[in-house]
Amino acid sequence: MSEELRSLLWTGSSLRVLDQLRLPFETEWLECTSYRDVYRVIKNMNTRGAPAIGVAAAYGMALAAREALSVAEPEQFVRDAATHLKNARPTAVNLSWAVDRCLADGAPSLGRDARSTADELAAFAGRLAQEDEDQNLALSRYGARLFEDGDSILTICNTGALATYRYGTAFGSINEAFKQGRKIQVIALETRPYLQGARLTALELVTAGIPFHLVTDGMAGFVMSHGMVTKVIVGADRIASNGDFANKIGTYQLAVLAKYHGLPFYAAAPFSSFDFSIASGLEIAVEQRDEDEVLSFAGKRIAALGARAYNPSFDVTPNELLSGIVTERGVFTPPFVSWEKR
Amino acid sequence: MSEELRSLLWTGSSLRVLDQLRLPFETEWLECTSYRDVYRVIKNMNTRGAPAIGVAAAYGMALAAREALSVAEPEQFVRDAATHLKNARPTAVNLSWAVDRCLADGAPSLGRDARSTADELAAFAGRLAQEDEDQNLALSRYGARLFEDGDSILTICNTGALATYRYGTAFGSINEAFKQGRKIQVIALETRPYLQGARLTALELVTAGIPFHLVTDGMAGFVMSHGMVTKVIVGADRIASNGDFANKIGTYQLAVLAKYHGLPFYAAAPFSSFDFSIASGLEIAVEQRDEDEVLSFAGKRIAALGARAYNPSFDVTPNELLSGIVTERGVFTPPFVSWEKR
Repeated sequence: MSEELRSLLWTGSSLRVLDQLRLPFETEWLECTSYRDVYRVIKNMNTRGAPAIGVAAAYGMALAAREALSVAEPEQFVRDAATHLKNARPTAVNLSWAVDRCLADGAPSLGRDARSTADELAAFAGRLAQEDEDQNLALSRYGARLFEDGDSILTICNTGALATYRYGTAFGSINEAFKQGRKIQVIALETRPYLQGARLTALELVTAGIPFHLVTDGMAGFVMSHGMVTKVIVGADRIASNGDFANKIGTYQLAVLAKYHGLPFYAAAPFSSFDFSIASGLEIAVEQRDEDEVLSFAGKRIAALGARAYNPSFDVTPNELLSGIVTERGVFTPPFVSWEKR
Repeated sequence: MSEELRSLLWTGSSLRVLDQLRLPFETEWLECTSYRDVYRVIKNMNTRGAPAIGVAAAYGMALAAREALSVAEPEQFVRDAATHLKNARPTAVNLSWAVDRCLADGAPSLGRDARSTADELAAFAGRLAQEDEDQNLALSRYGARLFEDGDSILTICNTGALATYRYGTAFGSINEAFKQGRKIQVIALETRPYLQGARLTALELVTAGIPFHLVTDGMAGFVMSHGMVTKVIVGADRIASNGDFANKIGTYQLAVLAKYHGLPFYAAAPFSSFDFSIASGLEIAVEQRDEDEVLSFAGKRIAALGARAYNPSFDVTPNELLSGIVTERGVFTPPFVSWEKR
């Protein structure tokens, strides 16, 4: 493979969403022509990754504004759509951030001129998408500096082009280092229950040509203790004012294991993932998803009948386990007391 | 369900092996009529768990001795069978321990009288099975004392009746505490890649009626940090002289996480799992299994094409992370400098 992977495509009148539930073996695009379609693809995780969700939701707002042209109260329709979209996934801050920005900055004609509002929101969603692309490229260039020849980088979940509008964050940093010629390799955790590592990150690694091995989530300690890992980098779905951050379930224990083995542990996320309205990770609500995701695999029940499961989709890593946070403004290192532009 | 789960049944002329690859949804018994049949069911993990493997291998020796009645050199045939059986799985010490005991203590007529050898080995395998049952019951009674009302016990893999000839070890201890009326609950890790937790331990928990939740291997840190776990108990496939021990991949990182969260961490195994010929865990060879077990699930490829994987089946936990080792002779606690009978 050599073509670039993309998660979202705006056609001008619809949002085409790559169905990540069918990857890596089937490439099927879902056509969203209404904001409810967008809500569904976010809710059902056909598309996922905090930055990608943010961009998709902005296009959902553009679709809502167009749908509003044929209703009695267009402003209310758009505002209801905003509330609805923000509820699709609770943990990722980019989702509500993108929707709120659409209302605050992207729709000056809202409440006055429905036609102009529709045009404004479509243009604004495009700007958010471009912004995500630009930020990820800048972030990836900062992140790439963390890696040197010989590094074996462990990562979890998927944080590449499929998780963003383009390029990726943690994976973007790895990929950028590789593109710049650094001799690195990757160990990717498969990331149960949704297997983003095995299905998506492995696909991105194969596409990029980066040498890697996949391991199960229970093998992280083994590869660390056997000198097979030199650095860890992960994404972040929401970062609190003190640097605590939420990310895919399994991230927290990776951070504990990295600390125990003396390995640098980085998070990477655009500045839009910061939530300065919360002081610490204690205030982050963790999404609990349906237990069937744990009890089943690919639609097939794996657990004995009668079994129940917990399924927290995220966990929160305290800032003291972090070596640094990679953003489009540079790499922030402890103590995380100021987030001034650098 | 109320009936007791059993892993192995000796018919007098064959070994019936419950096919654990088909659990929890199909109950199918495989009929082993030759030692090569037994080799295959161990190698392919139709039966698994160090104690169960040991007993199965002993019955494999009994079958070999009967097969030897129709060959030119019966003694050589039995000795070749022993070598063959010991190679089925490299990490579990019980396997070679059981086979060696068959030759050393179970076949006094070997090389003199093939008919008597066959009778002796069949009887000896039965004694090893009974010994495993007795030991596990004694071990479970010691282990049960570790648990009290309100405990939420985290465990990995499967260490119950399905992993042994009867009762189990770590799971046996949990089950015994529950049978004695202690109000406990369990959190079981699904244990990728083979999913012994989701498929087998969940089945044993449902059968026993013990309240429990299943979680993915990446959720261990989350449940520990949220106060949802009070104690951890795991099995052990091989224990070195200093207390370092090999167990299912994922055990080592659980021990690190338990230490970080200040939780007691116990291993449980019969004394036959001790290997006093090795000083420390550094001398334990870890079985690397086929990468397809990680790249696939239930025969279905999950990882992107082109992906490679590591698949260490075990890891080694250093003794300093252990709160105690539960055996049929009592619970040994640090420092592990003497293994005298207590």
